[in-house]
Amino acid sequence: MVLTEKTVNKNYIYRGKIINVRCDDAQLPDGKPCKRELVEHPGGACVIAVLEGKIALVRQFRYAYGEELFEIPAGKLERGEDPANAALRELGEETGLSADRLEPLFTIYPTPGYTNEKIYIYEARNVKRGEAHPDDGEFLGVEYIPLAEAFAMVQDGRIKDAKTIIALQYLKNRG
Amino acid sequence: MVLTEKTVNKNYIYRGKIINVRCDDAQLPDGKPCKRELVEHPGGACVIAVLEGKIALVRQFRYAYGEELFEIPAGKLERGEDPANAALRELGEETGLSADRLEPLFTIYPTPGYTNEKIYIYEARNVKRGEAHPDDGEFLGVEYIPLAEAFAMVQDGRIKDAKTIIALQYLKNRG
Repeated sequence: MVLTEKTVNKNYIYRGKIINVRCDDAQLPDGKPCKRELVEHPGGACVIAVLEGKIALVRQFRYAYGEELFEIPAGKLERGEDPANAALRELGEETGLSADRLEPLFTIYPTPGYTNEKIYIYEARNVKRGEAHPDDGEFLGVEYIPLAEAFAMVQDGRIKDAKTIIALQYLKNRG
Repeated sequence: MVLTEKTVNKNYIYRGKIINVRCDDAQLPDGKPCKRELVEHPGGACVIAVLEGKIALVRQFRYAYGEELFEIPAGKLERGEDPANAALRELGEETGLSADRLEPLFTIYPTPGYTNEKIYIYEARNVKRGEAHPDDGEFLGVEYIPLAEAFAMVQDGRIKDAKTIIALQYLKNRG
């Protein structure tokens, strides 16, 4: 069975700074009409960086949840930007770390029911220290957490962010 | 440093079937005004179910990506619904499987930059066969994939959905 839905009309409801929102007229696989709500996002890139056995985690208030979260360094892509460049840039801005090379680990779809965002996850190789320089209006703290402790934070729910869980589980699996 | 942003005004831009969208007036930790775009979502529940060494994966067209994806059975919460109930319901509707008990594994935040969705991930215990009965307008196929093959699909990128990757990585880690 081929499962395909067709776009009949793209209807923009909102064009924002980070997201656009559409409610399209679409067609189900059986030809019947339907509505499809979706969020357009340019995509994100993130990087797991380990320095002397400790992982760099960014502690940041996330407005949508009203909570501080721990996440690996991440940011959204500029238009047409190579995700590896974005990951390296965010690593530098948020933590001051640099890396000789980024290894692609996964491209994940965070919540496919309504967003088209792709998140590119990298691993930093040959990590080196430097000076952080967060964007204006970006308030964050950087913590260096021993890997075993970070794995425990995934298990006990202190780390909740999907991309960060995936990157940590990957490292744990690799051993 | 306490990192907190305050809501000054909640501004609804869209109230939809699955999502609401807001662009709030907010206040940064330093007191400066800012705008915060966010998607309200009621939350989702999903369940990894293994029957005779094979995992139940739902193959479904996702409009936002224009692709068919493999995902563990999942659905959104009804208002005030217990996530475990939702997970069990979706398991039954989408695959026909039932389970004696659901074990909570993780509560994940799929993409905290702009959504408040929480996804509750469960593991089904004592899985049994039954008859699928998908919602009207829900077109999907169910495939039973040997666990080792599913782990390989995570590594080679055939499985892209974040909740599915997290559940599979968890099983792989547990061994």
